[in-house]
Amino acid sequence: MKIAVLPGDGIGTEIVAQAISVLQALALPFEFEHAAVGGAAYEAHGHPLPEATLKLAQQADAVLFGAVGDWKYDRLERHLRPEQAILGLRKHLGLFANFRPAICYPQLVDASSLKPELVAGLDILIIRELTGDIYFGQPRGRRSAPDGPFAGSEEAFDTMRYSRPEIERIAHVAFKAARQRNKKVTSVDKANVLETFQFWKDVVSAVHADYPDVALEHMYVDNAAMQLVKRPKAFDVIVTGNMFGDILSDEASMLTGSIGMLPSASLNERGQGLYEPSHGSAPDIAGQGVANPLATILSAAMMLRFSLGQPEAAARIEAAVQTVLEQGLRTPDIMAPGCTRVGTAQMGAAVRAAL
Amino acid sequence: MKIAVLPGDGIGTEIVAQAISVLQALALPFEFEHAAVGGAAYEAHGHPLPEATLKLAQQADAVLFGAVGDWKYDRLERHLRPEQAILGLRKHLGLFANFRPAICYPQLVDASSLKPELVAGLDILIIRELTGDIYFGQPRGRRSAPDGPFAGSEEAFDTMRYSRPEIERIAHVAFKAARQRNKKVTSVDKANVLETFQFWKDVVSAVHADYPDVALEHMYVDNAAMQLVKRPKAFDVIVTGNMFGDILSDEASMLTGSIGMLPSASLNERGQGLYEPSHGSAPDIAGQGVANPLATILSAAMMLRFSLGQPEAAARIEAAVQTVLEQGLRTPDIMAPGCTRVGTAQMGAAVRAAL
Ligand SMILES: CC(C)[C@H](C(=O)O)[C@@H](O)C(=O)O
Ligand SMILES: CC(C)[C@H](C(=O)O)[C@@H](O)C(=O)O
Repeated sequence: MKIAVLPGDGIGTEIVAQAISVLQALALPFEFEHAAVGGAAYEAHGHPLPEATLKLAQQADAVLFGAVGDWKYDRLERHLRPEQAILGLRKHLGLFANFRPAICYPQLVDASSLKPELVAGLDILIIRELTGDIYFGQPRGRRSAPDGPFAGSEEAFDTMRYSRPEIERIAHVAFKAARQRNKKVTSVDKANVLETFQFWKDVVSAVHADYPDVALEHMYVDNAAMQLVKRPKAFDVIVTGNMFGDILSDEASMLTGSIGMLPSASLNERGQGLYEPSHGSAPDIAGQGVANPLATILSAAMMLRFSLGQPEAAARIEAAVQTVLEQGLRTPDIMAPGCTRVGTAQMGAAVRAAL
Repeated sequence: MKIAVLPGDGIGTEIVAQAISVLQALALPFEFEHAAVGGAAYEAHGHPLPEATLKLAQQADAVLFGAVGDWKYDRLERHLRPEQAILGLRKHLGLFANFRPAICYPQLVDASSLKPELVAGLDILIIRELTGDIYFGQPRGRRSAPDGPFAGSEEAFDTMRYSRPEIERIAHVAFKAARQRNKKVTSVDKANVLETFQFWKDVVSAVHADYPDVALEHMYVDNAAMQLVKRPKAFDVIVTGNMFGDILSDEASMLTGSIGMLPSASLNERGQGLYEPSHGSAPDIAGQGVANPLATILSAAMMLRFSLGQPEAAARIEAAVQTVLEQGLRTPDIMAPGCTRVGTAQMGAAVRAAL
């Protein structure tokens, strides 16, 4: 089992190191190969996603990714900025299905901005389409406006688009995931305004015919942004496009109060996947040994389950994370009265001990 | 002062009636003219925005709008659905600047999903561009995909676009509004992915040079969706495009817990405006006399201030609303222990009495 390890920038190196040490403690035949990505790769090789890194990712069974980005790269041209590495990996590996659980851990209910009764027991799965939509749609650029009330003015434009097979495959992923859970899918669109999302709604409804045991509801994206705040527990699986998914998955993960705990997976049609924490590179605390490694450790568990065919090993890691939370160990981001404050390495060691 | 009154569907009629009775109690020379809009107009005239309604709105000094929409129109063709009336009014009247305050009323802090300490004293102003972006961008439609990995498949597409003058005028509106408040503007974009919003960011930054007394920060839309949950009070004025503004303004208004209290204004370059509550038509409670009329009454106050040059009258209405809240009067949506439950008409009467 070959794992490409791409730690990236900021806290990426520290948190990925802990995830690897947890994987190594499982004593399974993993082969780890490291490569540079993001700002670190730009500094070393002049590009955020060097050829060698992309090739390694393509040949591996799975990619364990830390985080990329730092304010110091803000003034680089867009195609050299760290986040282009993420977009490039998604596109070149065809990682169309992004899984982002928004779970409120019982031990961390009080860390949420929401009132405890609204989030206790929360467990939503957001499935975001990740290789289509306005993220990659051509044409795009700057030009003189060809028509409309500002014809002749300088303008910028992008193209939102989705084809039937792209919507079908992500809809199948969502309905199948819902079958393993509470059998409800909320498809989020903006069919009242956008052609693309009227089509999205039509195609998701058609795919639903194959899944009579799963309930489907349609919801406008503005309403979804509200309902996540008002009654988050009413959701089970949310499926949506790339742009809306970007916004709603971040809103949902912050609602839980546990963003430092939330893993993510991005899969392609062959089951290859990229696994990364839902949080960012946090350059403000990088190198201090205080970052929470649990989201990355849980991402490694998702990797074992989704790409490496090791569900028992995945469950062992997840149980170990529960154990350390029950032991009261907390990194600063989730610290609470009566708990024990630990650093990145101590948290990783505690998970290994609890395996 | 000629006011076009467009009550619309659902609770629209009831709440607008109360706003009008409050305006009448001011004994100013208003001339009210009613017209049908939305589903009601479709039923009476076969179109959600009949010619006569549009003409009336164009000729009036201001439009007082209730709400439109009902599930029973869900199966109509898109161009006949109630919400097309809203889009048509925005476009034909050139209502490019949408003001949506997200205020947490001190008396209603406990109605928020968020913990009281996060929302007490919250007062954000979201300024959403309302006539551009992917809402109106051409071309759009369905076709066979001309290129890309799914070339030849059926696809749907839309065009996101913003021209320099469109961004400039909304940026000026935002900086001017911030000058009357806490002198901080957060411009929300997705410059790391979209050409349109890299341009947005560049143009907003350029306009900022005229407002050295106002602080400007740039924030990605996914981060903004998170920060609204995490530290909403850190915002003062948020300015963003039509699509992101749709999502963020609904998220923000639901966070306050007071969505039944929040007014909105949509203005054009001549100061003409359309005023409507931030909430929807709530067909489930229509006709029961229980809807909260305060958002519509406060929208009438915004109308007096922004379009009719009557700031004192506006302030009288706003003070009267504060008074009824202090008296403990509550419609069901904001009811709390120890308060007095009232219906739509009683709430309107109480505001008139408090003027
Ligand atoms: C960094 C950025 C391009 C990316 C996105 O918008 O998809 C990020 O926000 C994410 O959600 O992974
Ligand atoms: C009804 C719909 C077209 C509209 C919009 O998306 O703008 C609504 O959500 C709003 O925010 O006023």
